[in-house]
Amino acid sequence: MKLCTIGLILLLTFSGSFCSAQTEQTAIKEDFKPSTLNQPGQEYPQVNSQGYARFRILAPEAQSVKVTLGLGGPRGGTILTRAADSSWMGTTAVPLDKGFHYYHLIVDGGVFNDPGTLNFYGSTRWESGIEIPAPDQDFYVLKDVPHGKVEQILFFSKSTDTTRRAFVYTPPNYDKDQTTRYPVLYLHHGWGEDETAWTNQGHANLIMDNLIAEGKIKPFIIVMTYGMTNDVRIGGLRNFSITPFETVLIDELIPYIDDNFRTLSDRDHRAMAGLSMGGMETKTITLANLDKFAYIGLFSGGTFSMEDVNKTPGFKEKVKLAFVSFGSRELGGNRPSFFGGDPKANADSLKEAGINSVFFVSPETAHEFLSWRRSLHEFAQLLFKQ
Amino acid sequence: MKLCTIGLILLLTFSGSFCSAQTEQTAIKEDFKPSTLNQPGQEYPQVNSQGYARFRILAPEAQSVKVTLGLGGPRGGTILTRAADSSWMGTTAVPLDKGFHYYHLIVDGGVFNDPGTLNFYGSTRWESGIEIPAPDQDFYVLKDVPHGKVEQILFFSKSTDTTRRAFVYTPPNYDKDQTTRYPVLYLHHGWGEDETAWTNQGHANLIMDNLIAEGKIKPFIIVMTYGMTNDVRIGGLRNFSITPFETVLIDELIPYIDDNFRTLSDRDHRAMAGLSMGGMETKTITLANLDKFAYIGLFSGGTFSMEDVNKTPGFKEKVKLAFVSFGSRELGGNRPSFFGGDPKANADSLKEAGINSVFFVSPETAHEFLSWRRSLHEFAQLLFKQ
Repeated sequence: MKLCTIGLILLLTFSGSFCSAQTEQTAIKEDFKPSTLNQPGQEYPQVNSQGYARFRILAPEAQSVKVTLGLGGPRGGTILTRAADSSWMGTTAVPLDKGFHYYHLIVDGGVFNDPGTLNFYGSTRWESGIEIPAPDQDFYVLKDVPHGKVEQILFFSKSTDTTRRAFVYTPPNYDKDQTTRYPVLYLHHGWGEDETAWTNQGHANLIMDNLIAEGKIKPFIIVMTYGMTNDVRIGGLRNFSITPFETVLIDELIPYIDDNFRTLSDRDHRAMAGLSMGGMETKTITLANLDKFAYIGLFSGGTFSMEDVNKTPGFKEKVKLAFVSFGSRELGGNRPSFFGGDPKANADSLKEAGINSVFFVSPETAHEFLSWRRSLHEFAQLLFKQ
Repeated sequence: MKLCTIGLILLLTFSGSFCSAQTEQTAIKEDFKPSTLNQPGQEYPQVNSQGYARFRILAPEAQSVKVTLGLGGPRGGTILTRAADSSWMGTTAVPLDKGFHYYHLIVDGGVFNDPGTLNFYGSTRWESGIEIPAPDQDFYVLKDVPHGKVEQILFFSKSTDTTRRAFVYTPPNYDKDQTTRYPVLYLHHGWGEDETAWTNQGHANLIMDNLIAEGKIKPFIIVMTYGMTNDVRIGGLRNFSITPFETVLIDELIPYIDDNFRTLSDRDHRAMAGLSMGGMETKTITLANLDKFAYIGLFSGGTFSMEDVNKTPGFKEKVKLAFVSFGSRELGGNRPSFFGGDPKANADSLKEAGINSVFFVSPETAHEFLSWRRSLHEFAQLLFKQ
């Protein structure tokens, strides 16, 4: 089975960082603070209350230093200039969108990470990351509430003849109350990311801890594994096939999880969601396996149309939630057609057909992680309630 | 209580990478392969069968690129030269010691990581890492054996008013057999590292999985947390005090672990070990808390002398294992005196006094992680047997 190649390639076009559409120059407030993602003790990069980012790089003999963030999206960037102390400094020309952004440096034509920040796996490499505080960040920050665990498991996969890694979020009290069994969400990263993305960039564990502490959801387990099984890194997307990943997920990982964790293992207690490429994988795999999944979430990764419903036996009866979300900046211009029709119109048509269809738009965000943190936060509250 | 400041400062002198003492130029075999720690799909750095490392960096407009590995230890390095394709290339002038080495690049005077490799937290920053295959690597490689889990826990610390992180290794079948309770080893990193070091650099989880699979040890739990509680990163070692970390460990983390994991919580089933600064922390904390620990391991982090025995009430009766190890390259010249006397002579004097004193030397390694992987492998087989 092949995933829609055209869709995947177009999706990649949107994988870069979108910046705010704001172009007029406003006065920059001098209230810069170190980004929360800086390495311990590092003062730069910094972010101010308006969302401007300021960078400082030490490379005294360099000829040019550029940061791939700021002004005009993935092909823009911020040129740093040599300061009096011979460090390289610069501030983005526009405020950045709230939330998480990947970036890197270009030093004398070479790609390097900013030594000031932590690294995050995206674009098939460990990239620098910066965080612009969002007005609603409370839902994903670390608080003094009961915390679940993020457990690294290693499971053997016969189909690929490899030992593979997954991370499993288990909710607070999972170990203490040995009688309770839990529903499971299989949650997938995007192209070029890996199984670390949803906790490192997405704060999925903290989103869950906070929702549970507020009594907004009943606890469930989340499983995150690597979704680029047939290595589209190297072969390119033309050769992408869903089969290897579907085999690992359906035939190997799900049985392993049900065997090793206290799950509710029927379809009514199993959900799958993914962002970007992970959303397209989610759509393909769930619609081919409705005996295994009842709740489906596509985060910036496609839509459900009535054509999907009509060609999928049992969709109306079996899909208990068809959740589709995007960042608002993904929806301008002629972009919606890339995702299989206008997402809002598609969601409405499913709702009219009596399907529990939910459409969510993350305000003022693009194809980036704040859209997906918010999507998970919405999606989680709708799960396992039918 | 203050840790011995002089000892710690001298210890830092040894924290860099030692290279092989070999200086004669041998013919370099052209059998280079990508280091096992490279980022996915990255061809460089490479390592050959003799232990030479070869680097390739893209920075077409750079003036100079240097790698902090090779020839002559921490202050040496390998100067890269511009190749025909305008990449920067270079091979170490000598083979590197087997095992794991931290390094970074100096590009036009600035410190950057090698984009080819994974990063590891050491020297208070995320550094590049390279792995030179060791003849005995079998004991720490990933195999198709039953795997334990590495669980990230977040626990609230009243004394520091922070939510702190630890990683907990639980052995295979920990979840399945709910009746078994396990001994616990508290295992500590060195200066400038953090709670990720023992699994990322040390492969502690794989060492345990393999030992258990071979039937060489009875399973136990390992707990790893951050040991630089009062932030010697910033205040400097002169201000180092063991008290904040001792409080977190003894009053907060141990009770949390005993409350949340199926531990055997008496002193006879609790061990502590650490490398370098973590060894000195281990010595100070265990000798002040012999009601809580029975097995002690110092890996390149001090020795036990009869003076220690005589001034510590109950040492002879309560310490069931006094394990001390070093890399062989740490023991040359006048170095032993830095660690409180000649380690071997000290260990022998304890043994003569009837104490279960074990001294281990890792062959042909320095103050680096292969010494400590081997130390853990030896130490684990001696634990909880008295």
